[in-house]
Amino acid sequence: MSEPVRPEMLGSCPVPLAHPEQIVLGHGSGGKLTADLIHRFILPAFSNPYLDRLDDQAVVEISGARLAFTTDSFVITPIFFPGGDIGELAINGTVNDLAMSGARPLYLAAALILEEGLAIQDLQRVLDSMRKAAQRANVLLVTGDTKVVNRGKGDQIFITTTGIGVIEHAWNLSADRARAGDKVLLSGSIGDHGMAIMSQREGLEFEGTIESDTAALHGLVAAILAAAGDGVHVLRDPTRGGIGTTLNEIAARSQVGMAIEESTILVRHTVQGACEILGLDPLYVANEGKLLAIVSSEAADAAVEAMHQHELGREARIIGEVVAEHPRMVLMKTGIGGTRIVDTLYGEQLPRIC
Amino acid sequence: MSEPVRPEMLGSCPVPLAHPEQIVLGHGSGGKLTADLIHRFILPAFSNPYLDRLDDQAVVEISGARLAFTTDSFVITPIFFPGGDIGELAINGTVNDLAMSGARPLYLAAALILEEGLAIQDLQRVLDSMRKAAQRANVLLVTGDTKVVNRGKGDQIFITTTGIGVIEHAWNLSADRARAGDKVLLSGSIGDHGMAIMSQREGLEFEGTIESDTAALHGLVAAILAAAGDGVHVLRDPTRGGIGTTLNEIAARSQVGMAIEESTILVRHTVQGACEILGLDPLYVANEGKLLAIVSSEAADAAVEAMHQHELGREARIIGEVVAEHPRMVLMKTGIGGTRIVDTLYGEQLPRIC
Repeated sequence: MSEPVRPEMLGSCPVPLAHPEQIVLGHGSGGKLTADLIHRFILPAFSNPYLDRLDDQAVVEISGARLAFTTDSFVITPIFFPGGDIGELAINGTVNDLAMSGARPLYLAAALILEEGLAIQDLQRVLDSMRKAAQRANVLLVTGDTKVVNRGKGDQIFITTTGIGVIEHAWNLSADRARAGDKVLLSGSIGDHGMAIMSQREGLEFEGTIESDTAALHGLVAAILAAAGDGVHVLRDPTRGGIGTTLNEIAARSQVGMAIEESTILVRHTVQGACEILGLDPLYVANEGKLLAIVSSEAADAAVEAMHQHELGREARIIGEVVAEHPRMVLMKTGIGGTRIVDTLYGEQLPRIC
Repeated sequence: MSEPVRPEMLGSCPVPLAHPEQIVLGHGSGGKLTADLIHRFILPAFSNPYLDRLDDQAVVEISGARLAFTTDSFVITPIFFPGGDIGELAINGTVNDLAMSGARPLYLAAALILEEGLAIQDLQRVLDSMRKAAQRANVLLVTGDTKVVNRGKGDQIFITTTGIGVIEHAWNLSADRARAGDKVLLSGSIGDHGMAIMSQREGLEFEGTIESDTAALHGLVAAILAAAGDGVHVLRDPTRGGIGTTLNEIAARSQVGMAIEESTILVRHTVQGACEILGLDPLYVANEGKLLAIVSSEAADAAVEAMHQHELGREARIIGEVVAEHPRMVLMKTGIGGTRIVDTLYGEQLPRIC
């Protein structure tokens, strides 16, 4: 049984609930409309045990090797933003989707769709970022493709990266493995990526620039797994739709409830300010260098400790726990002592954020 | 030493030779401008032994498994055309790039970039074609991504498919393995795909509709390998840039010459007619269901025989041979007894053909 969607539950404006006849921006939000598209059209067409898991990567076995396989298109605008650019994002995003299965990322494929008129200089800058990000993440870009579309039929550059990683442990990390009693861990502050993009688009000026948190998380994942082993049940990077949407997905897949504490969730001062000005809820704003981990209560402290030793997990915290009550529902105890339903975002807060 | 480019050598109009400051449609042609982009920007950034082979797929080894890995973006316009649509093309194209390494295609990832306003009905039709093509090719679509871009920032639908296949033989098929004395085999008629698209775009009417030849070639490849084994040196599907460009790429990579006979190259009557009307050379027109095989002279007849037994190779022929003379150059004996240089296409005959 799923809750009826009431606009006041959502972090964004009310949107029509009927199935549209056309694709709307909200279909790319990562929220309810995206899920609707996937469940109505994609899964019925291609249903198989790998795809149906709906994790951020497929895990397949070939000739005895256990591999993670994932793909993502990056269509972010603007292509250059404080803290990164589309090239860096395209490498880190796919590395992270591999890492969330506990895989060691190995090889990437990159397909570029260039718009006629793109400055060669901008292309070079993007490729240079990709090169540096791939080096940092220790992955090799081994194959690719380049297409060009007419002016006005693309938007400078779209990049699709696809990754292969090898899973060298026997554990199974998947969104359906959260169990009542598990702790919910968050690796750092939320909303940085989304608000960096949004502030640039809206021309907002703050005391300090908000920078995207784009980063490759495979090292942090390795540290968590080394410390907490099979106590780690789920790993997810809360990108489109933010931690609000990701927690709901895990709750739905595992048929559990989530109880989180607002006071434990770190939002930088400037991000909070930008969200207030723009009327956005940081729970639904995209991150590109953070992860959520669902870890058994026994292993949770060791996992947090390991995260604190890693530069990308210095501010890691336990933000709540998995509960048997209110299955498929995420409840948040607010700063002023109330309880709020954190529903999945319906449509689009921030279009083209990745 | 490469030949100077003279416009009269080319199948298309003269184009400027200077390096442009901006991306032009020709950068997506699969011809000289694409090669220039790859050699000036992509290879210097990412050079590694896998990528540097410049085959249509990378061959990597993971935990003892030998895998082929390839990616392609499909940006064809119109998205529906006689003989197929963008969905079918996106499956077959990536299956074929895997097959050209002799791999058995196993798993696909699909990333969709949808333009706001795309009719849901059109999306369904494309997904349905993808489903049927994947079933026919016996591959599983195991992971994916969906993004939406604003109206006017895309063109209905772009599809990037990435494939993994397993190589279960020990032979090494690569564009650098052509040797003097090898025979050049072509599996059927040329130009069908490109002229199907072009005729539809230009609104040309013929007695018979020209249909795209889009097809998955892995079965034909298996038949060739079973018959000719390690006598098979190179396999390539001549897509963008046609057989003219593909033969030049092989000649350049293997440092050999090619001598082909125009009279042996099959061009359907309607395709020939459409090419004449539009001033296009069928040698440079894209195919989506044909392959070129470079096979040792000893094994060539067995390979042709095996192709004739397969429905996609009924019209296979030997169209020429690899020679030690004129390295890196493809010469064609024409129907009227002359000899013509078949150079690489410089820019763009047919933009957005796949």
